[in-house]
Amino acid sequence: MAQFINKREDVVIEAVEGLLATSAVPLARLDGYPHIRVVVRADWDRSRVALVSGGGSGHEPAHAGFVGAGMLTAAVCGDVFASPSVDAVLAGILAVTGPAGCLLIVKNYTGDRLNFGLAAERARAFGLNVNMVIVDDDIALPDLPQARGVAGTLFVHKIAGALAENGADLDTVTEAARRVISGTRSIGMSLDTCTVPGSPKEDRIPKGMAELGLGIHGEAGVEQVDYSGAQSAMAAVARKLKAAVGERNHVALINNLGGTSVLEMSVLTHELIRSEIGSHVSHVVGPAAMMTSLDMRGFSISLYPADDEDLACLAMPVGPSAWPGLAKVDPVRVMGLPDGLTPIMPLPSNHKPTRDFLVDCCEVMIAAEQKLNALDAKSGDGDTGSTLAGAARALISAMDRLPLSDHTQLLRAIGLELSQTMGGSSGVLLAIFFAAAGDGASSGLPMREALKAGLGRMQEIGGAKVGDRTMVDALAPALDSLNDGFSQAASAARKGADGTAGMSRAKAGRAAYVNARQLEGNNDPGAEAVARLFEFLASRKS
Amino acid sequence: MAQFINKREDVVIEAVEGLLATSAVPLARLDGYPHIRVVVRADWDRSRVALVSGGGSGHEPAHAGFVGAGMLTAAVCGDVFASPSVDAVLAGILAVTGPAGCLLIVKNYTGDRLNFGLAAERARAFGLNVNMVIVDDDIALPDLPQARGVAGTLFVHKIAGALAENGADLDTVTEAARRVISGTRSIGMSLDTCTVPGSPKEDRIPKGMAELGLGIHGEAGVEQVDYSGAQSAMAAVARKLKAAVGERNHVALINNLGGTSVLEMSVLTHELIRSEIGSHVSHVVGPAAMMTSLDMRGFSISLYPADDEDLACLAMPVGPSAWPGLAKVDPVRVMGLPDGLTPIMPLPSNHKPTRDFLVDCCEVMIAAEQKLNALDAKSGDGDTGSTLAGAARALISAMDRLPLSDHTQLLRAIGLELSQTMGGSSGVLLAIFFAAAGDGASSGLPMREALKAGLGRMQEIGGAKVGDRTMVDALAPALDSLNDGFSQAASAARKGADGTAGMSRAKAGRAAYVNARQLEGNNDPGAEAVARLFEFLASRKS
Repeated sequence: MAQFINKREDVVIEAVEGLLATSAVPLARLDGYPHIRVVVRADWDRSRVALVSGGGSGHEPAHAGFVGAGMLTAAVCGDVFASPSVDAVLAGILAVTGPAGCLLIVKNYTGDRLNFGLAAERARAFGLNVNMVIVDDDIALPDLPQARGVAGTLFVHKIAGALAENGADLDTVTEAARRVISGTRSIGMSLDTCTVPGSPKEDRIPKGMAELGLGIHGEAGVEQVDYSGAQSAMAAVARKLKAAVGERNHVALINNLGGTSVLEMSVLTHELIRSEIGSHVSHVVGPAAMMTSLDMRGFSISLYPADDEDLACLAMPVGPSAWPGLAKVDPVRVMGLPDGLTPIMPLPSNHKPTRDFLVDCCEVMIAAEQKLNALDAKSGDGDTGSTLAGAARALISAMDRLPLSDHTQLLRAIGLELSQTMGGSSGVLLAIFFAAAGDGASSGLPMREALKAGLGRMQEIGGAKVGDRTMVDALAPALDSLNDGFSQAASAARKGADGTAGMSRAKAGRAAYVNARQLEGNNDPGAEAVARLFEFLASRKS
Repeated sequence: MAQFINKREDVVIEAVEGLLATSAVPLARLDGYPHIRVVVRADWDRSRVALVSGGGSGHEPAHAGFVGAGMLTAAVCGDVFASPSVDAVLAGILAVTGPAGCLLIVKNYTGDRLNFGLAAERARAFGLNVNMVIVDDDIALPDLPQARGVAGTLFVHKIAGALAENGADLDTVTEAARRVISGTRSIGMSLDTCTVPGSPKEDRIPKGMAELGLGIHGEAGVEQVDYSGAQSAMAAVARKLKAAVGERNHVALINNLGGTSVLEMSVLTHELIRSEIGSHVSHVVGPAAMMTSLDMRGFSISLYPADDEDLACLAMPVGPSAWPGLAKVDPVRVMGLPDGLTPIMPLPSNHKPTRDFLVDCCEVMIAAEQKLNALDAKSGDGDTGSTLAGAARALISAMDRLPLSDHTQLLRAIGLELSQTMGGSSGVLLAIFFAAAGDGASSGLPMREALKAGLGRMQEIGGAKVGDRTMVDALAPALDSLNDGFSQAASAARKGADGTAGMSRAKAGRAAYVNARQLEGNNDPGAEAVARLFEFLASRKS
């Protein structure tokens, strides 16, 4: 699969440069390109214990993204999935280590152990006080004496980082790191392998399967298991973790391995909380991409039984934005639905002239059904006539519950009826038209102005302007002429409606997606409906 | 492609539950499942202007992930890529709107405009003061009068959110939102389509192509362009943006569309900064997944010409951890490499007995080359003999520059020589052995104890214990017996080396991966080398 990279050999440097240029925490790099790629705190004064981590790249934001106040002092970046050189590690150590010494936090891979280990020896030859801890939190391979270091490393960065930031000495920081390592257990699951830059993607996991107990370098998982969904996936992970942890409360670090969507990570979080270990998860870190395996569609869960002091360390604010913070797991708070969702129906009232007027208008729409459908067939799906006629029939049958004697309330009530009975965008738009007109009337506007306010709101929401080939092309001029009587309004509406036949390019509504030739010579059905309504009103004896 | 979800129809509720249970900011939901999925601030007192956004799901963390102090007051979550109902939006408005009123922030899609618009009308009928702004930041379709709302929406959430949090009134907040919208321009690029839950993945983008100007609902991009790497991809995006923005400084929001790895996003960030618009990017938000399109492997860039007040709003701390913060773009700081990378060579000195001793030892290794290679062929790649003999030859040729008369310095110098001339893990481990032994000697340990300190460090780094079928099985007992003389040490080493032939399961080193049957009856080559060395020393007349 194609990736957003350039040349494979440049990817680490380019990513480091992108991080450095845009980091909110002050960072610098050592002048050792191309082979020495070390990111260091630019605000570091060597007054406290330095924390140095690193390893192969491809696990971003680990580790360079966690350099900053309260976490790492320096990160040494190898090539993708390859340990950095001894010289690079040594450069990192020398750049940040002062009299308080330095702790190396190393994931348990042979290359990292050896290169960090030898670099530590060389640094000690300069008289520096350098300790090293090896993170081996992975429980995927219980028989392997050398468990891998995976996302649980972040617990070490954070807790040791907080202690170092607060001025603890090297032995204290080292002891805490060892304690965190000994208590941390992690396991991962993936639905797909990762794409290593410059290499063809391995197609190892068959459809319907997932890998459980995978590493972070694309190595195969310990077992392939049937995959049937997020719930069973998390259940399998929880089963492994349950065997490894006791009954104490734990912090769960929920790690996106790189290619899992935010939506999925939230679903997985939900599944973790309701899994068999969920009741022992008191806090979480994430979900977030912390220790990735490039673009792997997978996740890992790391558990650590934090005591109060650990929790304080995990909660301490830090510079790096890649650290997502600590959150307490709480029962979901549910608030009652607000009053008002069931609209208050106005009190019905009768007023025969209004009833007759409304019914007559509705009959006009019913009579125009076929003609309007035919016009709509030229530009849409041929149902404008039926939609309007259906709404008209529904309105007629609603007459007895309308507040016919209160025109302000009536406008709102018509809007409500249309919103409930008339489908499609036009139903919502007409509902908005009448509701907003009702608002206008209730605030004292005369009817013509109230209707214009309704039109304004409908245009704002629907986005149609005059000339866009919609009902607005008839309605806007009709309302503008309404003070001069229905006759003038009808002429204006007709002129507007007929004008739509010459508009070869619709700019709003569904007709915007239709070929110009199909539209020419045919009135927009909405505008035609408006024109027919006003022509009827002009002819009607009230 | 398989996803970490369960039933399609449950995905939004499960994701919301996952968010609610583990959010660091106090959140609640309305009691309206399954159709009304509204996330609200649980710490909200209605004393200020409420901000309500939402729309179809699938864009996580937008919008529910941005509910919290300083950003949204409520988010209304529709089905994946489908607008929420009018009732759901209304419930959200009613739940959070007090006397200060409410601003609806709506992305420009017909369904959202209509449903939020009608909900606003219904809320106004209750006397609530509700404004609505429509975000249309997408520049992909310059001819379309209705530009889509995409990731630039986050600028609106953040700036309006800061003003509302600080107590600005509804008109001020609305005016600011309109100003932000009018200044924001966005465009996206993708290498692959997204996977809509429950639907087969569309395979629309051919190999070697990318889509430019795509939406966030899986709709096709405006154009397919040749894809040759991150640099040209960002150049195409920058070209579109350059035409849309002037010469002012902008904030760039660097958005991961969901499936792009963190490594790639950093490379893209680097490319943005060095693109033709890079000099006009004064600040960035991200890179981060903010407005995703499920798992789409793509990104978008949104630009906004923030003034000082805007920058203060963007920089204001907020509750939601999904907001990555604002960072100033600065030239990359480069620090000189620390002194000490080129190891200080000790002053050479001569001491004939020491020289003879070392040369003799080296000759033993050279003589054993073939035998050790043959043993190694049973468990490894057959080069242990050659590796040791090569190092021995190199050491002999280095005699003139070694500090032969200072045994403490000599140990360190041998370590350094081996680290530079002897390949593989064993070279690093022996270098660590000698370096650490030198440290021990320099701190006053007698030679035997110094060597044991070296062994301890080598074991710590290499991870091998006695019984793991490595050179440690001969070296450890030999050093333990060294006080009793070379003869005792040689016997102990021989016993240890011969014992490795009975170890059917190597636990460290490369032989750990080899079938037990291949190992049985053959000494470990490293242990054999140690035994031969001590046997020679026992026989040697010093």
